[in-house]
Amino acid sequence: MNEQNFLEFVKNIKFGNDGLIVVITQDFKTNEVLMLAYMNKEALKKTIETKIATYWSRSRQKFWVKGETSGNIQHVKEIFIDCDGDAILLKVLQMADGGKSDFGAACHTGFRSCFYRKLEAEKLIKIGKPIFNPDKIYRKN
Amino acid sequence: MNEQNFLEFVKNIKFGNDGLIVVITQDFKTNEVLMLAYMNKEALKKTIETKIATYWSRSRQKFWVKGETSGNIQHVKEIFIDCDGDAILLKVLQMADGGKSDFGAACHTGFRSCFYRKLEAEKLIKIGKPIFNPDKIYRKN
Repeated sequence: MNEQNFLEFVKNIKFGNDGLIVVITQDFKTNEVLMLAYMNKEALKKTIETKIATYWSRSRQKFWVKGETSGNIQHVKEIFIDCDGDAILLKVLQMADGGKSDFGAACHTGFRSCFYRKLEAEKLIKIGKPIFNPDKIYRKN
Repeated sequence: MNEQNFLEFVKNIKFGNDGLIVVITQDFKTNEVLMLAYMNKEALKKTIETKIATYWSRSRQKFWVKGETSGNIQHVKEIFIDCDGDAILLKVLQMADGGKSDFGAACHTGFRSCFYRKLEAEKLIKIGKPIFNPDKIYRKN
């Protein structure tokens, strides 16, 4: 992306006092909401340039190329911002195997979506089943 | 909702230091993401009890029954929480006319979704058209 166009684009975005903006990530084909995360300006720029979703990890305080460990990368197809510029919506293809398969999981628990717990009859129940076994994907050091 | 069940439910939720949790609101029928807002524990309780989306307005610092002015209320059909309990997903019927019509707009600009601006060829473009004219809906005092 042209630097001038990027600067024009980010004028519409209100990053918080911590330099972050909240990002909703949605499945490009089904519109399923996969996860919610955060970006700073540089992560947004990397995401636009590489078309691979790159967040800012608040817990690890570093860039987080989604799927860099698990292979469940996200190809970014569309980027939206909301009316007051304080939220971003990404539409992605949630891949697996580093991009070889298009049926990956967004959640570190192995579920396709992080939103796999639903309030039903006043209790939280799990919806669906994990796609991968996290113990096999994330090596314990 | 039973008080004990509510207390059990909110044990799974991590409210921020400001007492708020981020909420994604999605169309129950189409899965379109309509908006992003915030709730505190009491707004979440009101939402569960009334089945009408009630947020906490950060700008006005008060409860915000979505649509109380415009009539574009949201009937809550499903509530999900994410893996680490720091985001909520609501699936709603986005109504208009105080619930008489099921084709309302979530955005104060009159667009159905707050995410009506898309990055396309390095520029922001508007997608779709407003459903209502905000000047007619929100009276100027």
